[in-house]
Amino acid sequence: MKGILIIADGLGGRPSDLAGETCLEAAATPNLDRLAERGAVGLVDPIGPGIRPGSDTAHLSLLGYNPYEVYTGRGVFECLGIGLDVRKGDVCFRANFATVEETGGVLRVVDRRAGRIESGQEELEAALDGMKLTDVNGVQVRFRASTEHRGALLLRGEGLSRRVSETDPHKTDEPVSRSIPLTPGDAAAERTAAAVNEVTRRSYEALKDLEINRRRAAEGKPPANVILLRGSSDLPHLEPISSIYGVHGAVIAGGALYRGIALACGMEPIDVKGATGGLDTDLAAKGAAALAALDRFDYVFIHVKGTDNAAHDRNAEAKRAFIERIDRELIGGLIGAVESGRVHLAFTGDHTTPIDFGDHTAEPVPVLFAGSNVLPDETRRFSERAAGGGGLGRFSGMVLPILLGYCNWSPKFGS
Amino acid sequence: MKGILIIADGLGGRPSDLAGETCLEAAATPNLDRLAERGAVGLVDPIGPGIRPGSDTAHLSLLGYNPYEVYTGRGVFECLGIGLDVRKGDVCFRANFATVEETGGVLRVVDRRAGRIESGQEELEAALDGMKLTDVNGVQVRFRASTEHRGALLLRGEGLSRRVSETDPHKTDEPVSRSIPLTPGDAAAERTAAAVNEVTRRSYEALKDLEINRRRAAEGKPPANVILLRGSSDLPHLEPISSIYGVHGAVIAGGALYRGIALACGMEPIDVKGATGGLDTDLAAKGAAALAALDRFDYVFIHVKGTDNAAHDRNAEAKRAFIERIDRELIGGLIGAVESGRVHLAFTGDHTTPIDFGDHTAEPVPVLFAGSNVLPDETRRFSERAAGGGGLGRFSGMVLPILLGYCNWSPKFGS
Repeated sequence: MKGILIIADGLGGRPSDLAGETCLEAAATPNLDRLAERGAVGLVDPIGPGIRPGSDTAHLSLLGYNPYEVYTGRGVFECLGIGLDVRKGDVCFRANFATVEETGGVLRVVDRRAGRIESGQEELEAALDGMKLTDVNGVQVRFRASTEHRGALLLRGEGLSRRVSETDPHKTDEPVSRSIPLTPGDAAAERTAAAVNEVTRRSYEALKDLEINRRRAAEGKPPANVILLRGSSDLPHLEPISSIYGVHGAVIAGGALYRGIALACGMEPIDVKGATGGLDTDLAAKGAAALAALDRFDYVFIHVKGTDNAAHDRNAEAKRAFIERIDRELIGGLIGAVESGRVHLAFTGDHTTPIDFGDHTAEPVPVLFAGSNVLPDETRRFSERAAGGGGLGRFSGMVLPILLGYCNWSPKFGS
Repeated sequence: MKGILIIADGLGGRPSDLAGETCLEAAATPNLDRLAERGAVGLVDPIGPGIRPGSDTAHLSLLGYNPYEVYTGRGVFECLGIGLDVRKGDVCFRANFATVEETGGVLRVVDRRAGRIESGQEELEAALDGMKLTDVNGVQVRFRASTEHRGALLLRGEGLSRRVSETDPHKTDEPVSRSIPLTPGDAAAERTAAAVNEVTRRSYEALKDLEINRRRAAEGKPPANVILLRGSSDLPHLEPISSIYGVHGAVIAGGALYRGIALACGMEPIDVKGATGGLDTDLAAKGAAALAALDRFDYVFIHVKGTDNAAHDRNAEAKRAFIERIDRELIGGLIGAVESGRVHLAFTGDHTTPIDFGDHTAEPVPVLFAGSNVLPDETRRFSERAAGGGGLGRFSGMVLPILLGYCNWSPKFGS
């Protein structure tokens, strides 16, 4: 018995999406509908009713953890997902390449994403990674660039703390924010904030005259001449899924965040060519890789990001079309394994992202379980509305533990 | 207004039980169906979604307690249920009579249940109860035999701790396990582990040459010549149901565990002739005794074990037939009191035990409430599938408090 968990990011919608229907309702999803008919559906509140989830906290909750107990911030998952070796005591950040102008020693933000820079990130990364902040107790800096303007940064040194403010002002024409301790007088946070401010200043010094930025200036593009840091966090205490359930899992995710969360939970990463974390991702390849990985792993978690990207871009047609691709190319490739009794499947989203809001909202999302141990309900469609009448009712988080339960892998609490 | 709570152990099933149906679905249950039509049904996660329950933790949760806060282990409930006087500081265990062979001072397990010994337990009990472990600070031993090879043991003395490992190796051809502290260096646990090892050794000395074991040897049966101990626990802090709700309840349960849990929650025991805790139990007598007890008590909790026994034995027909007996002999005898408005009834299971798995699984179980204060839903059948569409939705634990609520006995939280 094997398990596959698929989370389609931002899957849920609202009637305002497409003339009274959600994107999922408007999409033709014959494979999901067939599994809904043979399996059971319900509504899941990713964290809890009325709680508007972040992607990171929602994933922790769906994977079986209580985010109120374990969540320390997003940066650590970005660092893990991008391949940095994170140790206890390290403080981690999400990083953006941005464009600043210096006037009178003040760095003022011109473009928070440096024109969504599309190439040359290796050169920028090389200029930052391995930096040592001699002014701040010899704190060491590890940096990795990921897609476009994104990256992750890690500070390593004695007595650091994640309890510092971010440097991203979230607006243009504002100075880069100065990091300060969240609690005045917190010595470790003061040391960390000093390191954050120092690394920010030094990133400007290191980047501003790089060849790539001279070239960008010549082409009229904004230079990537600073990094903005947010999501300060350290390694959370997450008991590995393997030690809780005694089973070994793998993750297939194009996005660093999702890969990082899964790694933090003890899954092993599987690289799939063409898994971009975007709308152009190769869904069939992800499904095929998951099926192949079931020879080595007990379960595979597949993350699909395109649904959320389209919704953040307020593009209902793109979201609908991507859901149809998920149904055809991903579910279509897996349905045989489910119907043959080899695999139990769970399919859900990590939150609702309505088109006209363009960001996460608090509504529950539909969830589907299918496989030989799932008692079928009366539902014959997979959608938000159909799920509201589904036989699994409504519950919070815990989708992976429920899937592992259908696979007969749950540990017994009590005797 | 009176209340009756019935928990049918291991009631829930899977489609693999009986050609696509659960045992409950396949069973003819006209009385439960009638109450489902006149009352309301839903799904209850005994502890929570995705949590695979033990019988003890599930019962605590269904009775209104948070097992994550109060559960200390199973042995204390076995001791209470069997009639031992458990005090603060005592450490309690489940005990099995087993068969060992001694070679070179090592006790090697030949049969973990001493051939499921069926008679003579009084003689075994007398040889163990009242033992004083002079080597271990004068710790006192109380022992009671229950059905077949089962019993319960209690250690009483200064400075004991439940945090010790068990002696049951859970396999034959293995030595009896040596009890050790769960945390090295824990002095109270070291003292308790020493007592556990000493009582194990002395149980062998006390039992091996008993007349009953000579007789068993002569008959070619395995002697009951040692006790194996597990479920180490102490008295949990459970606010009595009577002090929470101001009402007095009684328990009718053949199995010591369930009786013990109810006693720990402040219920009083009612002995019913023919209530065996097995498939041969006298269900009509249990129902009649419950109705009679309602003259003296506000509510009665009836536990029925046969459903789980049949499922652990992977016998679908026996489980189905037992459910039909519950419907006919137990529910049939109570339905008049419910329909006359005298009694509110709650009926559920403490977990799912699918036939092909033969052990507890994590799925929710159906729950039914009936009585004059229950708003009827549209459901006309009592089954897992019907409950998934029931008007009560899906919730976790708390079945007794909900029943007491229908009886207008809930305390108000807030004002």
